Amino acid sequence: MQIVIIGSGNVAYHLAKAFILNTISVAQVFGRNEMELSKISQELNIPYSTEKLEDADLYIICVSDRSVEDVSALITKKDCLVAHTSGSLPKEILKGGYRKSSFYPLQTFSKSKDLDYTQIPFFIETETEDDQKILSDLASEISERVMESTYEKRKYIHLTAVFACNFVNHLFARAKEISDAQEIPFNYFLPLIDETVRKIDTIEPKAAQTGPAVRNDKRIMELHELLLKDESLEIYKTMNHSIQKMYEL
Amino acid sequence: MQIVIIGSGNVAYHLAKAFILNTISVAQVFGRNEMELSKISQELNIPYSTEKLEDADLYIICVSDRSVEDVSALITKKDCLVAHTSGSLPKEILKGGYRKSSFYPLQTFSKSKDLDYTQIPFFIETETEDDQKILSDLASEISERVMESTYEKRKYIHLTAVFACNFVNHLFARAKEISDAQEIPFNYFLPLIDETVRKIDTIEPKAAQTGPAVRNDKRIMELHELLLKDESLEIYKTMNHSIQKMYEL
Repeated sequence: MQIVIIGSGNVAYHLAKAFILNTISVAQVFGRNEMELSKISQELNIPYSTEKLEDADLYIICVSDRSVEDVSALITKKDCLVAHTSGSLPKEILKGGYRKSSFYPLQTFSKSKDLDYTQIPFFIETETEDDQKILSDLASEISERVMESTYEKRKYIHLTAVFACNFVNHLFARAKEISDAQEIPFNYFLPLIDETVRKIDTIEPKAAQTGPAVRNDKRIMELHELLLKDESLEIYKTMNHSIQKMYEL
Repeated sequence: MQIVIIGSGNVAYHLAKAFILNTISVAQVFGRNEMELSKISQELNIPYSTEKLEDADLYIICVSDRSVEDVSALITKKDCLVAHTSGSLPKEILKGGYRKSSFYPLQTFSKSKDLDYTQIPFFIETETEDDQKILSDLASEISERVMESTYEKRKYIHLTAVFACNFVNHLFARAKEISDAQEIPFNYFLPLIDETVRKIDTIEPKAAQTGPAVRNDKRIMELHELLLKDESLEIYKTMNHSIQKMYEL
């Protein structure tokens, strides 16, 4: 199977690298940014072009959400499979006479970092079962975590990530406001945060819950509310309410 | 300086171990649970007793919050320093004619796990500067992170930990509800969660924020609200509101 990767950003780089590391050849990396393309090309020994798209069986589009549609229209070939790598776009965003699909790696890629590709989940949506098999087999060469996923399901994947990552980061930001105001170094809390996260590798988050709300410690909760205001107070009340509902307290 | 540790739980064990590893001798571990005491005694080569408290310059009480007061009354000696290890009790909870203090390690200890004691913060409160120096010097033998802390300040330390650990865990629990309902394995999100936490080792949480709220992506936020209900919907709205307030969106 001839594979072409379109794009020169972090997703393009890491996907190309994961393929090469698993002896899956990539026929070309294609894009606009010649400097980035030539770096990928040199490191991974893959031909690149900014002008002529190589003939291929599979094109994987690794560009920003807002460019996917335009880039997809550059592929004029009909007898091929095209995949975008976005978590928040339907496969129908792709514009062309080819078979359409989504090949979504759930990870924040940053170029410098070495990643364990076997642990990166791939969510795949295609028009036909044959194409599902093509992309699943391909993803399975890289990763142990491959599953079919409709656009509908991808919405929930994104939503889960918002709770488990975006909101978690915001709690760190609000926590740091509290400790900063008391001149307590926030990095003092990092070992405890690491412990919190390491715990859920082995224990269900629901079973791992600690703190005043799950202990139903009203004295501490009332005391804490007096120390807070505005958005942090709202978060405190909302989270405690949700914890107490979950444990029927 | 003669040191006695009172208690046989995780805090007692880890504190005794940290002392021994740093060649600080411990004169005795004292408590009620002979089986646990004898285990600590054997592993760390420290005498133990369930009956007679050894004479010492410093007694460190490592028992549950509700037992601190009763246990502190067992110390009848006057010319000595006594410290409890609780984050949520004032030093005045200690009942006796001795000098009172708090020696609070900010960590969730679990017995089986090896810990890097140098990274565990110690918060210290005493009656006098001399005692502050005694306990600070002692903690500094174990840890790089030692600071003075009033009872007032300990309240904020606890509050910061509630945001950064207890609430973070609850977000994991709510996130898992969402992914479970869609039959998406929650462990697929663990690499992304790890990445979220690793990031704040080097970047301020406020600068590391990603997601629809900070992008002010109203389309996605409205779509997500349609997928949620009850407590999860409340959390979603409260967190987005707080994020948007923080970035003045």
